[in-house]
Amino acid sequence: MKAAVLHRYDEKLAGQEFVQYEDVPAPRIESPADVVVRIGGAGVCRTDLHIIEGIWREKSNVALPYIMGHENAGWVEAVGSEVDGIKVGDPVVCHPLVTSGHCLACRRGNDMHAVGSSFPGINANGGYAEYLKTSQRSLIKLPKTLAPKDVAPYTDAGLTAYRAAKKASRHLLPGQYVAVIGVGGLGHIGIQVLKALCAASIIAVDRSDVSLELAKQCGADHLIKADGNEVEAIKELTDGQGAEAVIDFVGEGDAVKKGLAATRNDGFYYIVGYGGRVEVPTLDMIASEKTIVGNLVGTYAELVELMALADRGRVNLRTKEYRLKDANQALLDLHHGKVRGRAVLVP
Amino acid sequence: MKAAVLHRYDEKLAGQEFVQYEDVPAPRIESPADVVVRIGGAGVCRTDLHIIEGIWREKSNVALPYIMGHENAGWVEAVGSEVDGIKVGDPVVCHPLVTSGHCLACRRGNDMHAVGSSFPGINANGGYAEYLKTSQRSLIKLPKTLAPKDVAPYTDAGLTAYRAAKKASRHLLPGQYVAVIGVGGLGHIGIQVLKALCAASIIAVDRSDVSLELAKQCGADHLIKADGNEVEAIKELTDGQGAEAVIDFVGEGDAVKKGLAATRNDGFYYIVGYGGRVEVPTLDMIASEKTIVGNLVGTYAELVELMALADRGRVNLRTKEYRLKDANQALLDLHHGKVRGRAVLVP
Amino acid sequence: MKAAVLHRYDEKLAGQEFVQYEDVPAPRIESPADVVVRIGGAGVCRTDLHIIEGIWREKSNVALPYIMGHENAGWVEAVGSEVDGIKVGDPVVCHPLVTSGHCLACRRGNDMHAVGSSFPGINANGGYAEYLKTSQRSLIKLPKTLAPKDVAPYTDAGLTAYRAAKKASRHLLPGQYVAVIGVGGLGHIGIQVLKALCAASIIAVDRSDVSLELAKQCGADHLIKADGNEVEAIKELTDGQGAEAVIDFVGEGDAVKKGLAATRNDGFYYIVGYGGRVEVPTLDMIASEKTIVGNLVGTYAELVELMALADRGRVNLRTKEYRLKDANQALLDLHHGKVRGRAVLVP
Amino acid sequence: MKAAVLHRYDEKLAGQEFVQYEDVPAPRIESPADVVVRIGGAGVCRTDLHIIEGIWREKSNVALPYIMGHENAGWVEAVGSEVDGIKVGDPVVCHPLVTSGHCLACRRGNDMHAVGSSFPGINANGGYAEYLKTSQRSLIKLPKTLAPKDVAPYTDAGLTAYRAAKKASRHLLPGQYVAVIGVGGLGHIGIQVLKALCAASIIAVDRSDVSLELAKQCGADHLIKADGNEVEAIKELTDGQGAEAVIDFVGEGDAVKKGLAATRNDGFYYIVGYGGRVEVPTLDMIASEKTIVGNLVGTYAELVELMALADRGRVNLRTKEYRLKDANQALLDLHHGKVRGRAVLVP
Repeated sequence: MKAAVLHRYDEKLAGQEFVQYEDVPAPRIESPADVVVRIGGAGVCRTDLHIIEGIWREKSNVALPYIMGHENAGWVEAVGSEVDGIKVGDPVVCHPLVTSGHCLACRRGNDMHAVGSSFPGINANGGYAEYLKTSQRSLIKLPKTLAPKDVAPYTDAGLTAYRAAKKASRHLLPGQYVAVIGVGGLGHIGIQVLKALCAASIIAVDRSDVSLELAKQCGADHLIKADGNEVEAIKELTDGQGAEAVIDFVGEGDAVKKGLAATRNDGFYYIVGYGGRVEVPTLDMIASEKTIVGNLVGTYAELVELMALADRGRVNLRTKEYRLKDANQALLDLHHGKVRGRAVLVP
Repeated sequence: MKAAVLHRYDEKLAGQEFVQYEDVPAPRIESPADVVVRIGGAGVCRTDLHIIEGIWREKSNVALPYIMGHENAGWVEAVGSEVDGIKVGDPVVCHPLVTSGHCLACRRGNDMHAVGSSFPGINANGGYAEYLKTSQRSLIKLPKTLAPKDVAPYTDAGLTAYRAAKKASRHLLPGQYVAVIGVGGLGHIGIQVLKALCAASIIAVDRSDVSLELAKQCGADHLIKADGNEVEAIKELTDGQGAEAVIDFVGEGDAVKKGLAATRNDGFYYIVGYGGRVEVPTLDMIASEKTIVGNLVGTYAELVELMALADRGRVNLRTKEYRLKDANQALLDLHHGKVRGRAVLVP
Repeated sequence: MKAAVLHRYDEKLAGQEFVQYEDVPAPRIESPADVVVRIGGAGVCRTDLHIIEGIWREKSNVALPYIMGHENAGWVEAVGSEVDGIKVGDPVVCHPLVTSGHCLACRRGNDMHAVGSSFPGINANGGYAEYLKTSQRSLIKLPKTLAPKDVAPYTDAGLTAYRAAKKASRHLLPGQYVAVIGVGGLGHIGIQVLKALCAASIIAVDRSDVSLELAKQCGADHLIKADGNEVEAIKELTDGQGAEAVIDFVGEGDAVKKGLAATRNDGFYYIVGYGGRVEVPTLDMIASEKTIVGNLVGTYAELVELMALADRGRVNLRTKEYRLKDANQALLDLHHGKVRGRAVLVP
Repeated sequence: MKAAVLHRYDEKLAGQEFVQYEDVPAPRIESPADVVVRIGGAGVCRTDLHIIEGIWREKSNVALPYIMGHENAGWVEAVGSEVDGIKVGDPVVCHPLVTSGHCLACRRGNDMHAVGSSFPGINANGGYAEYLKTSQRSLIKLPKTLAPKDVAPYTDAGLTAYRAAKKASRHLLPGQYVAVIGVGGLGHIGIQVLKALCAASIIAVDRSDVSLELAKQCGADHLIKADGNEVEAIKELTDGQGAEAVIDFVGEGDAVKKGLAATRNDGFYYIVGYGGRVEVPTLDMIASEKTIVGNLVGTYAELVELMALADRGRVNLRTKEYRLKDANQALLDLHHGKVRGRAVLVP
């Protein structure tokens, strides 16, 4: 099959050819629960750029060459002997994690923290290809309203935004505020999820007017240009107190310091983006009684919930389509901030 | 001052003159935290009919004659010596309970279960009058967007619907269902609150097409006519399982049995309306693992939250205005099902 | 193999021979995830008496003859081709439910509400036998501290008590009260779990002085004889308010009415025992804002938690051993209230 | 009255005379809710050393000279005109915060985050004196089992440990682990609270064998000497995963880095001690999905809960008594690590 393969790291993203479009062996059914999916769309994620930079090298421990692509949807191509409930031809979206379901984390519904899982596209071959091998437990059948190439980015970008926004919605009350830092591929979904799950006032913060316009369309109540005075602007909106929740989809540069500063005492600062550092005196943490929350993708059940929102039109994903053989163009465009919404590779 | 006074019970609501419009002494400041409110509007509630019927006689222990009216809003007329933060002339909405704030329930924010509280309109003189005596702790200042006569019914009808809907929203996930039984004064607010606080699909159930139309405008996703087959209709919508939450604003006749039957296993049945009985074998409770939840008005903080929703237009109340001297007409219209939304008496 | 088989219902439990000790075919591995367990002990449960009475006939829909016994532990005798992590000879305790793990309830960790599960001993052959067929997903490996025949009753009696007590412990605060109605096989475990999981004062209520003595050994802080005045006695202990939580392990006769009456306003009444009826006006439910909670066994993860308590000696189970061929004697003794703690059949 | 007054900062704690024992005017009733308490005991806290060092200067904004002492208990000496429920002579313990109770945080029971509160001993005159002025809302009447000088340190040290341990106990399940870093005045209470509120295995970590012995008496299940390999030791106990909760009562030096490293993925790191810094890449936060929680004292209701534990003997405080005029000795002993448990000044 054709695939866009990563052969070497490029720490400064200085090149033009990150991946190589070439022929590789197609995956095959090996265990009774295996499923091979014919890819309908594979999302291109900032994490892919970070992988190319080598940031994930130690955490993922993957050997090059390998195939990136951890946001996948398509149609069932082949199934193992014990697969039931899903049949060849079914349109499916792939939860990014492959788990056995036997560990205690899985038994508690917390499959994101499974023991012994794999994460195709991160530490195993992913979906920048014609076919992907995954497992029955990772698949959700799509309703007729949703096409694979339109929903692929929900599986990581969407799901991560969903989980962080859902956590925040559990404590956000009417009359309170939530600030969303960064209205890109994840942020614009986060805003829609917040709108669906709670009635807090949503403050969108971004450097770009185009992104703020997107935020408005997604349901943001207040728009703040990230011009250096965004913390002051948030405080002005919130009686000088800050927002009860801040969801930081940037997570690098001064976003972290500002995000924490814009969080109200007793409030929650959710980290989704990464690349930077949290640096705060313990005295400030105890005097403010703030909570800092790490967020990593979401569970299978949460992807089911997100697809229910998508199916009912409560969340809409902006995508930009590229052919699989143009994977490098998609990665470059993302690197240069030229993708509004989310890039998707279509074989 | 003028007031509409209850002098005697009328167990079958057979009369035409439930209350008497007459002159009574106006309330005065007696303690440092007292506030006298000039009534701008007083909601007329089904509970008022139940009071007239004598149903609350033992629970409220009030001596006749007294003044009903537990849904009040207006303007501050006079304040005690220790009142701060609120001044004469301020437009205010009155939380229905008057508490000292010293007991442990209050200290935990659970003022609905305060020790030693009073409930003007239920066990003390209420707002079917020109003036009402309450306390600083019960008052919320209104934003300019909201007029007293338009918000009075939020303080009990609205707040009760809010609290029950908020409880349900804490566990309702996208892809799940909530059934609202009865789309009257409370139910139509409940639907709007559910829409604001969660993304579950909302099923509205009522006998009347007009009410179902109102439900639709309020955001209900599915409308079911209560024609005797409503349980089957709910099950058909929910894969034969029932709704994860049922909020019963009727609570009498066969609504209770049907409400519990329409609740999914492991689900929650919220009782708001009353007059009937819960009757269920303990075997059914354990085999289904359902939970039955009683609901009584809401806390001060919850009324603040509800006013935030109203201020932002996320909840709208349908009201029908009557002059205070026409209180009997309002009660009769309510009794005969002629009030859409909520009746309000204006002095 | 030998088994104690139920051939016919006995609605009044009037007979002496409820089950027949006889030879039946042993279960065999049929699917890749199947496991056959050699029974080390099978708990005898009040539910077994209710099954014999026919109370469960409609709910379980099982065809006679069949083998009761839903509280099982033993050693792995044979495994299917896909079983991993457990091997022949391992000592195991059996979660009572057999599930595929694919439905959304399972994916959320809520396997008690799985779609399409079976419940050996209730709706399939159980453990009143030498061997039992179950599935890998239902097995927990035992630590060396725990022998199968000593832990079998944890899987239903213990787990049910654990789940109800755990639910209550989530809201019980120091200074609050929990009343445990009925200190039998379940109740004595419930008291120990409450002691381990929260610091509320525990009030034990029972008709028998021997049971109250057991309650004291299990950690109850207050003992109340169920002599007709138990509600008053509970109120006296609790400033006239009642207990924040009442866990009713009886669930029949006047226990239900009394249990609800002994529950404080805003409190929780947990139903575990059954046979009686909940009968309460909706007015009382709303005026008191009480919650009534059904309880059914517990999840796999909860059984893991309970075994952790047992392993560390925080919970101890009183058992009385019978030989499998004496199953009728065990059932009779249970019926006549002659079993302290929990009867266990050993093949 | 006599008081131990702070006249100047001593940034390196190099002196011997931090405070001056002298005559100052006694506080008087000024508002209707005021209460003057005759001090029975005032706890000496590491925060007092930090105040002397000037660390709190900007946060507290207090003008010197002033009287430290934020852990107070004693007997009611005088009351304002509106005080009810408490009378002269009553033994009382003082919640450290003085609030009006009117802001929304208070109305939600979250009085630690009140708007416009004062904190005697931090930003107003405290209890290193014969008398202290506070407010009715801050007082809890003591049961006969508890003497003021024995309970004073509960109001800050105890309450802070209680709140952090209570937060952790909400998610800690049997079979899980909690590590307590630092077994001093707070840590030894934290261990007892964890023992009372949950059944997780408690790992105590300290540099001192004497402290570890105290930890054992308080109920710790595992003792780890902080010799540089404590993270490895915690991981060895926890299957290489780390503890589900880490409560860090040190919060400075390498405790922070180690505390976070010893926290399991998806786990919670609670900061109580301070002086150091949290420094962690956002990538680590998202890859591990850990949560970092700041903790500041506790609410009034939580102090009620803690006194209930103390009253029932579930928590015991180790104190060392000093005369008020020996305040400097107490501060020096604390500075030099010579106080086991908690120092208390008695006028």
